[in-house]
Amino acid sequence: MAFDAQTTRDAPLSDAALAQLFTEARTRNGWTDRPVPEALLRSLYDLTKFGPTAVNNTPARFVFVTSPEAKARLVPLMAEGNQAKTAQAPVTVIIGQDLDFPDHLPKLFPHAPGAKDWFADEAMRRESAFRNASLQGGYFMIAARALGLDVGPMSGFDPAGVKAEFFAGTNVEPNFIVNLGYGNDDNLFPRSPRFTFEEASQVL
Amino acid sequence: MAFDAQTTRDAPLSDAALAQLFTEARTRNGWTDRPVPEALLRSLYDLTKFGPTAVNNTPARFVFVTSPEAKARLVPLMAEGNQAKTAQAPVTVIIGQDLDFPDHLPKLFPHAPGAKDWFADEAMRRESAFRNASLQGGYFMIAARALGLDVGPMSGFDPAGVKAEFFAGTNVEPNFIVNLGYGNDDNLFPRSPRFTFEEASQVL
Repeated sequence: MAFDAQTTRDAPLSDAALAQLFTEARTRNGWTDRPVPEALLRSLYDLTKFGPTAVNNTPARFVFVTSPEAKARLVPLMAEGNQAKTAQAPVTVIIGQDLDFPDHLPKLFPHAPGAKDWFADEAMRRESAFRNASLQGGYFMIAARALGLDVGPMSGFDPAGVKAEFFAGTNVEPNFIVNLGYGNDDNLFPRSPRFTFEEASQVL
Repeated sequence: MAFDAQTTRDAPLSDAALAQLFTEARTRNGWTDRPVPEALLRSLYDLTKFGPTAVNNTPARFVFVTSPEAKARLVPLMAEGNQAKTAQAPVTVIIGQDLDFPDHLPKLFPHAPGAKDWFADEAMRRESAFRNASLQGGYFMIAARALGLDVGPMSGFDPAGVKAEFFAGTNVEPNFIVNLGYGNDDNLFPRSPRFTFEEASQVL
């Protein structure tokens, strides 16, 4: 479907949709055994990929860990407090960034044939990969909720171990890891406080 | 409103909602003169703030640049190709990360009184601030679309200049900058190619 410009896309979604995406959504620490079909993972990717990134560099790479064999490789690399829930979740997703993203810019950003050369500086390349893969991680989690899934993101794991086990021989580095499925209320934290608008924002 | 656990939140949003958030949404380079009321900016923050971050550290800070005076301070710090559209957009948002986020963890993450001390290492603190503020930037842009707004994110600006002009005397650093409003089709790129599922993902 396509929108008529400035007619149908300028209205807010329903309160129920906003609740599903943001206001009532919660990080889940317990998971039902309801499976997540691969078709749904593909739909999730097909939403995520459209989120904006700098020069469309889309550096995020996604490893969907679903089989018992793959889970057995990942779980020991998680921080102790993250192991049981990672073992329980039907899917655990390793989100990484490909530091070789400039190699793909002739395909991804055909408007500017020289874009590949804008990232010759390694620190700048690393910063852009990290920023944009993190943005894509944000899109990914909201897209998962938009598809009715729950998420449980985690930074507590052994990055060098995950790199060696899942990204050997590539220039992809792990960024963060997300449990994915249909959550339950086990070990659900009370909602933590948030900053007020004035504490985190200003209008100039 | 609240969901009954595992009953109503497990269904996908409508195709129209998914189109507004992802599949038909486009980065905008031209803007109508329709204003964005401050109440809508506050609603946008009140969605964004609920997105998940590590230990709820919510390091992102948002400067909503709306007045002609504030725009005049920002526009010269943008890359040349970003100046005209930044001048035209009704709102331009500077998204930064507060490297002093650990100071707020006793309030933001009361479950773990020692969380403040988990970020004593400066490199780790900086990495967590950058990752989580970028995630929040992703939530912010999808939340904007959920409220009917368009976004135009940009990395092309003078970071040291923006830091000095808008975050002097703080430990906040700029991450990226977003034009916000109701876009039109001026200077709209053709949709760039995206990686296929197989190119960016694997299922193990």
